[in-house]
Amino acid sequence: MRVVIIGTGLIGTSIALALREQGSQVWLSDSDPAAARLAADLGAGDLLAGQIGEPADVAVIAVPPAAVAATLAEAQATGLARCYTDVASVKQLPVARARERGCDLTHYVPGHPLAGREKHGPAAARADLFLGRTWALCPLPEASDEATATVTALVRACGAVPLTTDPAAHDRWVALISHAPHLVAAAMAARLEEAPGEALDLAGQGLRDVTRIAAGDTALWTQILVANAAPVAEVLATVAADLAEAARLLADGDDPDKAVAALLDRGQAGVARIPGKHATFLGQRGAPREFAVVQVVIPDQPGELARLFNATGAAGVNIEDVRIEHSPGLPVGVAELSVRPAEAGVLLDALEAGGWPVRR
Amino acid sequence: MRVVIIGTGLIGTSIALALREQGSQVWLSDSDPAAARLAADLGAGDLLAGQIGEPADVAVIAVPPAAVAATLAEAQATGLARCYTDVASVKQLPVARARERGCDLTHYVPGHPLAGREKHGPAAARADLFLGRTWALCPLPEASDEATATVTALVRACGAVPLTTDPAAHDRWVALISHAPHLVAAAMAARLEEAPGEALDLAGQGLRDVTRIAAGDTALWTQILVANAAPVAEVLATVAADLAEAARLLADGDDPDKAVAALLDRGQAGVARIPGKHATFLGQRGAPREFAVVQVVIPDQPGELARLFNATGAAGVNIEDVRIEHSPGLPVGVAELSVRPAEAGVLLDALEAGGWPVRR
Repeated sequence: MRVVIIGTGLIGTSIALALREQGSQVWLSDSDPAAARLAADLGAGDLLAGQIGEPADVAVIAVPPAAVAATLAEAQATGLARCYTDVASVKQLPVARARERGCDLTHYVPGHPLAGREKHGPAAARADLFLGRTWALCPLPEASDEATATVTALVRACGAVPLTTDPAAHDRWVALISHAPHLVAAAMAARLEEAPGEALDLAGQGLRDVTRIAAGDTALWTQILVANAAPVAEVLATVAADLAEAARLLADGDDPDKAVAALLDRGQAGVARIPGKHATFLGQRGAPREFAVVQVVIPDQPGELARLFNATGAAGVNIEDVRIEHSPGLPVGVAELSVRPAEAGVLLDALEAGGWPVRR
Repeated sequence: MRVVIIGTGLIGTSIALALREQGSQVWLSDSDPAAARLAADLGAGDLLAGQIGEPADVAVIAVPPAAVAATLAEAQATGLARCYTDVASVKQLPVARARERGCDLTHYVPGHPLAGREKHGPAAARADLFLGRTWALCPLPEASDEATATVTALVRACGAVPLTTDPAAHDRWVALISHAPHLVAAAMAARLEEAPGEALDLAGQGLRDVTRIAAGDTALWTQILVANAAPVAEVLATVAADLAEAARLLADGDDPDKAVAALLDRGQAGVARIPGKHATFLGQRGAPREFAVVQVVIPDQPGELARLFNATGAAGVNIEDVRIEHSPGLPVGVAELSVRPAEAGVLLDALEAGGWPVRR
């Protein structure tokens, strides 16, 4: 495939790296020439300089949401590629603007890879960023089959799983599963800004998890949230109302227990619906199952994890996830090994036989 | 130390197991005889049956918050121990009730270990549950030095770090760092209950982290939240107000960018204040520093982690944390190894020399 990447930030450069691994020919361009040069130096492709002979198969527009339509119009005016896609985290805004500008919508398939990192820029790019991730595609009614097929092939070449939807549904969905949670985490984390240090000394893993994503880039997230304002506002308003009602009942209610329990039950039911490797795997009939977690106490020093994983490898058990918990200054930690439930017994036997302190 | 545990749930049984490892003599009691028997079968101690000769050094009251005072009064009436502590997640409620009942407050030191699991009951207990965790102690003005010293020794014997405060401050702090975040996670997760399945297919790690704790036990959390209602309500009301204002600005505001960015900035500042091993370590002058993260692509099969950790062990580099990311059905994953920044170069060199695909 012959591909032009316009915008060599984290996402654009990662796409370029992924495509190069598949043998594609890639050209790179960015409004900041230094960013394009860095991406080229990282092996992401060649700098786009003037003509590239016949049009590329695809041009990937990897610029911020508000800049997509203008970039698309400009690229189409020069006949840069046979078809086009973008990667913005919102889809209605760029599509509406592209329509207004009279862009050729038969050869434009809007897209959004559900992948990212808390870092940004070409230096943070990874060829494997999209491996196994969902990549939403929103072909418009005008879209040609050829354009849809070409962009779908690009998504698959990056190792991602295409999911076809329309811009309005896409924006509602990401408001719910990504944009609103970001602001919820930020609003909770904002309460810590002026908290006493002793309060923060009590913080556990729960608080860390709830607030982690609030560490993301403010400028990028502001643009995303404002570009998807209506659906994000709808989710946030409901969350805010639930929390305000819980606060009111806790502060003034005669009998807050039932209402608080009902909110907790709804939260529990919501969490249970999230699919994914870290908490669950799909059983043979597609139903989610929990991993079994095996806990092992390990000295906090070089070589101990090797010794542990030699033992798990020798037992023939595949470790699906590892989490290490310990606190600064303590000589031991706890490794939590996630395995398929059927393999937990084998692993426990093997570790115990090897003298590891496990708890059954 | 001679210790009686009243209430052999997760926390009581874990304390018993930790103390037994230190050679203490432990007696177990629970309003549910089967729970006490299970704890005894797990090696947590002997069943409390009638007299134990002279009073124990400490009785640990590990019952739900609302039951602490009555249990304390009953135990003190029988002269069960020389001093008493409890482990409830709130402190003002049990202290006020103990005062009302005329309990002996000179020999009662209220406590709260900041440790837990999403599971409960004696079978989930772990001797290492408190290793390196903070354990709040709230000795009252009446408390004798001897009682405070004895309970502090018990906390240290469990491997925890005692932090002395007063009940009102304790309850405000845990409202902020534990109780309110729990309801915030639940309110966000509740939005997923009726979401379309396609929306959930787009879910990434961010959503999983924000909502994880909402999977906790509803009955236990309802009691905790209601028992600490006022301080929790105060935090929730502010979070709700920030979210409602963000929703209003996003839905109707002329120029929401500035206000949204301000909330995101405050969230970022709040997250940066959370101490802890997973994101930071304390540098020589006590300032938090970030770990460096080294990413390595690994085949998802038995033995590969052993091979990787053999390489890190041979390089003499201590791995502070490990996270494995990959998706179901894919043949490779990415191991993210957290190391002290000064050791990242050594590790990268060693892995690269060993043929591991690392990204610099």
